[in-house]
Amino acid sequence: MQSLIEELFLQAFANPALNAREDQARIALSELCSAGDRLAVSTDSYVIDPIFFPGGDIGKLAVCGTANDVAVSGAQPRYLSCGLILEEGLPFAMLVRVVQSMAATAQQAGMQIVTGDTKVVPRGAADKIFINTTGFGAIPARVDWGVHQIRQGDSIIVSGTLGDHGATILNLREGLGLESELASDCALLAPLIAPLLHIAGVRALRDATRGGVTAVLHEFAAASGCGMEIVEAALPLKPAVRGICELLGLDALNFANEGKLVLVVAPAAEAEVLAALRQHPLGRDAAVIGHTLERQQVSVVGLFGVSRRLDLPLDEPLPRIC
Amino acid sequence: MQSLIEELFLQAFANPALNAREDQARIALSELCSAGDRLAVSTDSYVIDPIFFPGGDIGKLAVCGTANDVAVSGAQPRYLSCGLILEEGLPFAMLVRVVQSMAATAQQAGMQIVTGDTKVVPRGAADKIFINTTGFGAIPARVDWGVHQIRQGDSIIVSGTLGDHGATILNLREGLGLESELASDCALLAPLIAPLLHIAGVRALRDATRGGVTAVLHEFAAASGCGMEIVEAALPLKPAVRGICELLGLDALNFANEGKLVLVVAPAAEAEVLAALRQHPLGRDAAVIGHTLERQQVSVVGLFGVSRRLDLPLDEPLPRIC
Repeated sequence: MQSLIEELFLQAFANPALNAREDQARIALSELCSAGDRLAVSTDSYVIDPIFFPGGDIGKLAVCGTANDVAVSGAQPRYLSCGLILEEGLPFAMLVRVVQSMAATAQQAGMQIVTGDTKVVPRGAADKIFINTTGFGAIPARVDWGVHQIRQGDSIIVSGTLGDHGATILNLREGLGLESELASDCALLAPLIAPLLHIAGVRALRDATRGGVTAVLHEFAAASGCGMEIVEAALPLKPAVRGICELLGLDALNFANEGKLVLVVAPAAEAEVLAALRQHPLGRDAAVIGHTLERQQVSVVGLFGVSRRLDLPLDEPLPRIC
Repeated sequence: MQSLIEELFLQAFANPALNAREDQARIALSELCSAGDRLAVSTDSYVIDPIFFPGGDIGKLAVCGTANDVAVSGAQPRYLSCGLILEEGLPFAMLVRVVQSMAATAQQAGMQIVTGDTKVVPRGAADKIFINTTGFGAIPARVDWGVHQIRQGDSIIVSGTLGDHGATILNLREGLGLESELASDCALLAPLIAPLLHIAGVRALRDATRGGVTAVLHEFAAASGCGMEIVEAALPLKPAVRGICELLGLDALNFANEGKLVLVVAPAAEAEVLAALRQHPLGRDAAVIGHTLERQQVSVVGLFGVSRRLDLPLDEPLPRIC
């Protein structure tokens, strides 16, 4: 089994660093240094349930999610490690499908999976498959995006409809029967981000995954000391997502996304950033949803013009969402 | 809970990259480039059961294991990522103990845990705690250790007694009652490896973890095309480990180690390498255990002078050993 798995990975992920079969991948630092001056590194474990869902699967998610966390720094994600924890008895065909999805997504992203590890645990000690990926890339020397750049009066932009991933998983788990109308937005964001590297006034980017836009706004507020005020009427939402939220009394701002950016940009850069985002299919529905304030708080202006605090949800809204 | 965990990590692992609280760590490439010309990257998931054991715990293991996989390339391990999967209901005190052990081990290693992720899964979807670490460091330009360097007639050396980790876990699982005589050899190997960087004729290093020395010899043989012949009488074994093997009919060569090197060195370098290893407490019991042959095979010369094939075990000898 172990050797079968190794052959599977070596075939699916083949690249010089992996093929060398050493205990560690060896990557020429000159390649990274020619692309930038800082190494961007991000890690995530993926435990999503179910592992296959409309719009993706745990393998695609494990590549996109980590690649996106690297890409929002301005780096081009280049390399990935992959650690798998498999439950004994996982059907081999299921593993093959996940691995092939990882390989295809990595290839699409121009990333190499350079090193990996597999652990098989007895039945019941894990649920089917967990994947950790750690991603690397170099941040171009001229780019310095981050929460330290955020200023009062900046514009807050999202790159598209909100909550698609969270609503899709919720629908599957709760059997709401909206499969035909919902799909995860799981996607590689680096191509959407690339044109922004050349626009002055981009302050900070995050992808709004677990915890949704609410979590990102709270992170931005806490780290920058600025307030974040968004406008409910400005939020791009798909009708099916809006429907689920109304039905269950939930807020799409708290739903996970797997292919959506939250951006803070200088007012002067707003039009150029919006235009750049909308030129890409993933950014077609990009919209300004609010702006930053002086006093640190996170608030939303409702449909009747009244501003209310946007608190972090007390509970994890949905376990194993990613 | 999520914020409690975040505070725990930020306090225990504090360093500039982590403190920035971005979605990715940002590390000056100049620091890495001044140490070498290739980035060494290794990843491992740790699923050991039990999570606390004589000589270590899953946290110490997760730092040492990955640091060692980086160090055997000749690189000084410098940075780690950390991905945790926690079972809902894991006692918080247990998590604190593991995290503090990780922090203490990383500090001892001179490593920074620069980025991380935590997922909590419902009770029964994982067993207590799984940890993934991905480590990296730069390989000095003059160092080129690896299986491609192995030649016929080289010496095979181990850095100390074999099977201590595997025997310790086996003893706990099977209730053999040898707790006072056995402890895992879980340790950071970079200090033991550092003096070897200055010795000509070092061909290849591996740390003999899961699968033991047998697995490393098979990897060396398959990748180099050379045979590996070792001598049973030359193997350094602690009496308690030897006792467990005789009692249960097992081979310590297949037992996992977590602080032992297998080295292939040129015959002319043998004495110098042995002396360097023995100067360090971790290498006190270093010994030449065999040599490489022309024809690709792995064999062991028994106590009566008869050579037999050393096959890979058909089954995983012990699940969740690391």
